[in-house]
Parts: sequence; structure tokens; C-alpha cells
Amino acid sequence: MSAPGYGQAFAIWRAGAGQDWTDYTCHAFVEGLGDGSLPQASYLHYLRQDYVFLIHFARAWALAAAKAETYDEMAAASATVHALVHVEMPLHVLTCAAHGIERSVLEATPEAAGNLAYTRYVLEAGYSGDLLDLLAALAPCVLGYGEIGLRLQHTDGPYAPWCATYGGADYQTLCHDVGALLDGALERRLGAGWHSLPRAQSLQSRFTTATRLEIGFWEMAQHPDRT
Amino acid sequence: MSAPGYGQAFAIWRAGAGQDWTDYTCHAFVEGLGDGSLPQASYLHYLRQDYVFLIHFARAWALAAAKAETYDEMAAASATVHALVHVEMPLHVLTCAAHGIERSVLEATPEAAGNLAYTRYVLEAGYSGDLLDLLAALAPCVLGYGEIGLRLQHTDGPYAPWCATYGGADYQTLCHDVGALLDGALERRLGAGWHSLPRAQSLQSRFTTATRLEIGFWEMAQHPDRT
Amino acid sequence: MSAPGYGQAFAIWRAGAGQDWTDYTCHAFVEGLGDGSLPQASYLHYLRQDYVFLIHFARAWALAAAKAETYDEMAAASATVHALVHVEMPLHVLTCAAHGIERSVLEATPEAAGNLAYTRYVLEAGYSGDLLDLLAALAPCVLGYGEIGLRLQHTDGPYAPWCATYGGADYQTLCHDVGALLDGALERRLGAGWHSLPRAQSLQSRFTTATRLEIGFWEMAQHPDRT
Amino acid sequence: MSAPGYGQAFAIWRAGAGQDWTDYTCHAFVEGLGDGSLPQASYLHYLRQDYVFLIHFARAWALAAAKAETYDEMAAASATVHALVHVEMPLHVLTCAAHGIERSVLEATPEAAGNLAYTRYVLEAGYSGDLLDLLAALAPCVLGYGEIGLRLQHTDGPYAPWCATYGGADYQTLCHDVGALLDGALERRLGAGWHSLPRAQSLQSRFTTATRLEIGFWEMAQHPDRT
Repeated sequence: MSAPGYGQAFAIWRAGAGQDWTDYTCHAFVEGLGDGSLPQASYLHYLRQDYVFLIHFARAWALAAAKAETYDEMAAASATVHALVHVEMPLHVLTCAAHGIERSVLEATPEAAGNLAYTRYVLEAGYSGDLLDLLAALAPCVLGYGEIGLRLQHTDGPYAPWCATYGGADYQTLCHDVGALLDGALERRLGAGWHSLPRAQSLQSRFTTATRLEIGFWEMAQHPDRT
Repeated sequence: MSAPGYGQAFAIWRAGAGQDWTDYTCHAFVEGLGDGSLPQASYLHYLRQDYVFLIHFARAWALAAAKAETYDEMAAASATVHALVHVEMPLHVLTCAAHGIERSVLEATPEAAGNLAYTRYVLEAGYSGDLLDLLAALAPCVLGYGEIGLRLQHTDGPYAPWCATYGGADYQTLCHDVGALLDGALERRLGAGWHSLPRAQSLQSRFTTATRLEIGFWEMAQHPDRT
Repeated sequence: MSAPGYGQAFAIWRAGAGQDWTDYTCHAFVEGLGDGSLPQASYLHYLRQDYVFLIHFARAWALAAAKAETYDEMAAASATVHALVHVEMPLHVLTCAAHGIERSVLEATPEAAGNLAYTRYVLEAGYSGDLLDLLAALAPCVLGYGEIGLRLQHTDGPYAPWCATYGGADYQTLCHDVGALLDGALERRLGAGWHSLPRAQSLQSRFTTATRLEIGFWEMAQHPDRT
Repeated sequence: MSAPGYGQAFAIWRAGAGQDWTDYTCHAFVEGLGDGSLPQASYLHYLRQDYVFLIHFARAWALAAAKAETYDEMAAASATVHALVHVEMPLHVLTCAAHGIERSVLEATPEAAGNLAYTRYVLEAGYSGDLLDLLAALAPCVLGYGEIGLRLQHTDGPYAPWCATYGGADYQTLCHDVGALLDGALERRLGAGWHSLPRAQSLQSRFTTATRLEIGFWEMAQHPDRT
């Protein structure tokens, strides 16, 4: 699949991640969502872990707002935090309830190792580096889900709502906004030729490592018994 | 004036700040807002500096969301960030425009020393400590404005809208919510007897130091020529 | 084995970690160091990963110095950073060279997932929390190696020098110092009854999670082919 | 005075700070140290405040070690922390004792506003940005004292030992090392042409703001009664 039009940085980093990007966005867990073959036990396990994930993911976007250098950067990050905390997480709770997972059970989910490894990597990248390090580590999740959604949005089966959400207009708009935030933040700090600076290599490394940790997340999600 | 009912922690810390609290909430700048005697040049200077202040203040609340340990803490901090970035700051821009300060001028405001000292203290308290340190440093601003607003809400004169805003129901609700966030965060971590722990002294110190830096902010605001 | 005398906090947290503590300190990798049965390939893999680990571990101790609240806390953390960076890491480079691993190879070691997961958890705990969160996450490594060293210090075989290092007087003194730093930092902030506060549960959770991540580190070290 | 040979970044930033640099390095407090005319009360006040300053300055260098990306960067920052905590601060305690300021008095020094403003700015720059932001904010203090020391090293009078310390070989070597750390860190991340990137402006701003806060520190030091 060619890269969705989420901007220049995404196109460069996605290409730089090579096979890891394919292994992430075409992981067996993802294919199982697309063709409906994913066992429900795996999906329910994923839903529970994703609740824990969303908490730390929202914290990371809040850190991005704290590390912003302009009003526009802050507003973009803040809007994402708000959407995650006040829209996506309540929806997630409802979705889980519809699958028989009560809120108290959801909140008591023990965090799986593959989940913890990913979110702490992202947060630490943000704390130790600057906004660019943080955004490069956040990008694979936001934009990878967008790419997966685009590819799977018209599938049928039990997971069609999931696919439709990420392939839908609202989420795709978010992806374009985040892509624009990335490109703007890079150019504002490093200029139009940022991709030829040494810094580009460490940002690529952030993106690629986060992509590998996404693969680990799918692995964890697919095998509820292993964690 | 007796303490507004913003909760237990506020009552304790406000009392602990002693004369500093009075010097902050009854500063000549504040009295000038109340009786209309504040020179317009000081008010305009304050508006411009407050724009810069709000950016860093919103960053500090975003950091609070990043440092939250429960969904409810995160939701409370995130709602505050959202209100600041997507409601209060746009309103501030409109207010400034109504006073003849264009957005480009506003954004080019050089940060005064007394402004910088305060916001960096708050942010550093948050980064170096935990959520409690950050909230103790944020509290004097949020809740002090609430107390000032309560006292001045029915005054007339050129600054009546300012006074009505902070004395109004929306802002007072925010103060009660922040007070509840403080009390909940303290009890959740340190138990109901938190105020007799050694930690209570360092939190009091955060609150008192931030209160003194608020005094410095009013001093700066009142004397546009000195900065 | 009974708990080594590294202080009160360690005794409480070690007991609280239960079977996880045993699984960490008596892991097959450790037993293989003790009886000499560990394959050399595993040991060399461990040495390379440990170099990467030490870099992030030293960064975490540097963060502890940044988050210290007294001169004594800062001096203790700073002394540990200095020992790690200017003594232990150069020694590690020499040890690796003696095993045929050149410095350039060492520095090019790709960080294994189980390594990354551990160090980023510790660093993020420190950034998001305060010094206590950071120390609770650092403790299993420092003090667990001390306990392992005490148990294995008189063994023979190819890994006797490793065992002697961690069982030796210098390292044991460090463990007592770190134990005293822990107890002092806890009492200074939370008082002598800290272990009955709600905060004690989150600190225990930090310690136990870090202990589990140590088990993951040994798993990674033992199976060079799996990473 | 021409710029001391502390490297390229220093030369650029020093020139960029313009009159602020002169106002800092030739402040009346500094001239008073050089010609011996500084009242002893001011000097003693400075010594006490400098103790508080050194604590936060050492914390900032520890944060630099935590944010380092290579072993060499970490070793340079760690060596500075060690020198500050285990050499300079104990010496400072001795110097103060020789002037009749006991350790308990020294440790009880209330932090002056101009002191707090400076150190928190530096620390917050480091937490919110990356290593470059932190180093740009640290540079005026380290290298400015070096330049002052060079200029005043051969003066007589009561403050000759102070001047000789900062003009002496040990401190000048430190300045060259820090200058090399700066140049290396910049080139490693941003390439040899870093000074023409947009990022160069925000780094200059960090340096200039820190320089202004140094002026505020001297002001505070010179007027013990005003704080």
C-alpha cells in the first residue's frame, strides 16, 4: 500500500521503518480484524489492554502540550488530549460494556509487559528529548491506525465497526492534522531541509523503535495467555 | 475575608501563607481593579503579560495531566487545559483586540522578568516533583483569582467585567473543582492525615513561594515602566 | 534466603514483591552464573546488553540527583552516577575487551526489547513521579545484585569474578548506602509511618514492576537468539 | 574584551547577547570584586545566595547527564556535577565558614527572588526542551564566570582569591571543556551549519534570557536589603 497523505515527515519515516512498518500495519492481529478471523478472546484482551494504553497515550499527548513552543502547537496537542480523555475513553468504556466488560474490571486490568514497554518508551522519549522526539515516537500509533483503517474500512464481519472508526472521516482528519503538526514543528525548528540533518537519524530511530513496540503490542494482544 | 470554600488543602495553605496571602489578594493592583483607579496603561500592560502567562500556565496544567495517576485526575487537568487553550485564550485575544492590542502585537510581547519567574517556578516544581508539588504551586493563581473575584464581583467601573468574570458562577465552579482535585489527590496519596506529615511542609512552601511570585507579578503589572 | 540488611524500605518492598523477588534473584541465568553452567554465548550477550543498560541506568541516577531535595540526597545520587560513569562503565569496557568484544562493537549493540522496557520504565517513573518513585524503581537492580552477590560470592567457575564483584565489600557498602538513602528519603518526606500511607502501595507497585522487568532482562540475556 | 576561546557556539551566542553580555560580565558587582570596592555585606550576601544557587545549578547539570545521548556527553556532564557537589560546594562551605557563616546558617538561607528566577528558568528549559536548550541556558554562568575571571585574575584586594579561582587554570580548563561539549552536542544533532537553522534563534534566546537573569542575580547580590 502506498503511504496515505499524512505529510512529508510521515512519508519519510514510514519508508525509513521499512519492513517493520509492514510487520506492524499488516500484523496477523490486524488481518484478523479485517477478515473477522480474530478470536473474540484476543479482541477482548486487546480492548482491556487498550484502555490502559489510552491512559498513558493521553498522558503523552498532554506532555506534548506542555512541551509546545507556540500557541498552535499547544492547541493541536491539547485538542488531541481532550478528544482522547473526554471522547475516546468514554466511548471505549461503552464499547467494553457492550462486550460484557464492566468499568471496574476494565480499570483493574493488569498492564501487560508489551503494553508497558511501548507507552513508557514514548513518554521517556518526550521527557528526555524535546517535542520532536515525542512526536516521532507518537506518530506510528496515530498514523499507523489511520493507514490500517483506510485499508480495512470497507470490510464486513464482527470487527467492521473498529475498521470503520479508524477509516472514517473523523479519524482521517485527525491523521492529517497530526501530520501537519509534525511537518510544521520540524520546519519551525530545523528548517525545510531537516531530513538531511544528523537529527533526522535520531528521529527516524524514535519512529522505528516505536513501530517495533507496536508490533510487540499486537503480539501481546493476540496471545492473551502469554502475558 | 474568610477563606472561600474551596476545600481543606486550600484553607490550610492559605492560612499557612499568612500575610503573603493578603499581600497578594489585596495588592494595590487588585484594589485598583476593584475601585477603578488602576491606570489604563497598567491594565493594558497586564493584559499583554497575561497572554504570555496563560501560555505557560496552560503548559503547566498539561503537565499536570501528564503526571496524573487516575482517569479522574487526568480528566480534571485536561478539562482545565482545554478551557484555558480553547476558551480563555481566544477570549483574551478578543479582549485585547477590544482594547486596541492586535494579535500580532500580543504574540510579540516580551516576557517580563516577574512573569517568567513565576511560570518557570511552577513548571519546574511540577517537573522535579510529583503532581502534588505541581498542584500546590498552581493553586495560588487559580484559587486566589477566585477569592479576589468573590470579593470584587459587584463593583462598578472600567474593570467591572474583569471582576465579574472571576466572581462569576463559571469561574467559582472551576475553583471548587480544583479544590476538590487538590483534596482528592492529597488523600489518595498521603491519606486523610496528610497535613501532619513532613511532606506538608514542602507543599506549604510551594504554595507560599508561588503566592510571593504572584505578588511579584502584580508589582510587574502595576509598573509597566520598570520591567 | 533472608533479606540482606539494606534497611527497612528494602525489607518491606522485597517481602511485598513475593515470588517475583525469588524469580528474579534465583533466575536460571543467575544460577548459571553461580554454578558456571551458563553458556558463554549468553554471558557475552548479557555483557553487551548490560553496556546499553548501564548508560540508561546512569541517566536514571543522574535524574535522581536532579530531583534531590537536600545536599545529602544529591551527594549520594551524584556519587553513584560518578561511580557508574567513571568507574563501572570503563571497567565494563575492559571486561568486554578481555572477552573479545571491542569497544566499537559494544557501542553498536542494538538494544534488546527486554532491556529497553526496563530502563524506560525506571526513567519514566522518575520523570512522572518524584524522587521516591524513582528510587523505588531503581532499588531492585542495585539491591537485588547485592543479594545475588552475597549468595554467590564464594562460588568457583568461569563467572566467579562476576559473583565476587557484587558480593564484595565495595558493592555491599554501596547497597547499604543506597538502602540508607531510601529510608532517609522516605522518612524525610512521609515520616516514620510511611509504610501505612496509601503512597506505600504505589511505591510497592513501582518496586514490584521493576522486579518483573528484571526477570524479563534475565530472560532476554539467557536467550540471545530470541531478541 | 574579545571573546575567550571557549568555542564557536559561545562566540556566536555571546555576540548575539550584545549589550546584555557586557551588562552581565561588567556589572558593578563584578567591578567591585575586581577593584575591591564591593562592600563586605554584599559579598557575604552573595556567598549565602550562591550556596543555594549551587544546589540548583548542580541539579541542572545532573539533568544534563540524564538528557545526554552519548557516553561522552554523559561523562562530561557527570564530571561537572561531581566537581560541583563534591569539590566546589564543600569548598564553598569552608569559604563561608572562614567569613563567619556557619553551615547551619548557610543551609537556612532564604532563597532570594533573583536567585530563584534564574535557576528555575535553567531547569525548566532543560526539562521542557532537550540537552541543547539546557546547555544554552547553562552556558552564560559557566563561561561568563570564566571570562570575568580571565579579566580580573591579576587584581589585588580582598576579593583577589575569588578572581584567581575563576581566572585560574582549573576553571579555564573547565570552560574549554564545556565549550567543546556545546560545540560537539550542536554539531552531533544539527550539523556543522546549525547556526543558520531556525533552532539557532531559540537557542540564542535561551542564552540571552539566562544572561539577563545573571544580571538580575548580580543586582540581587549587590543589594542585600532589597530582597
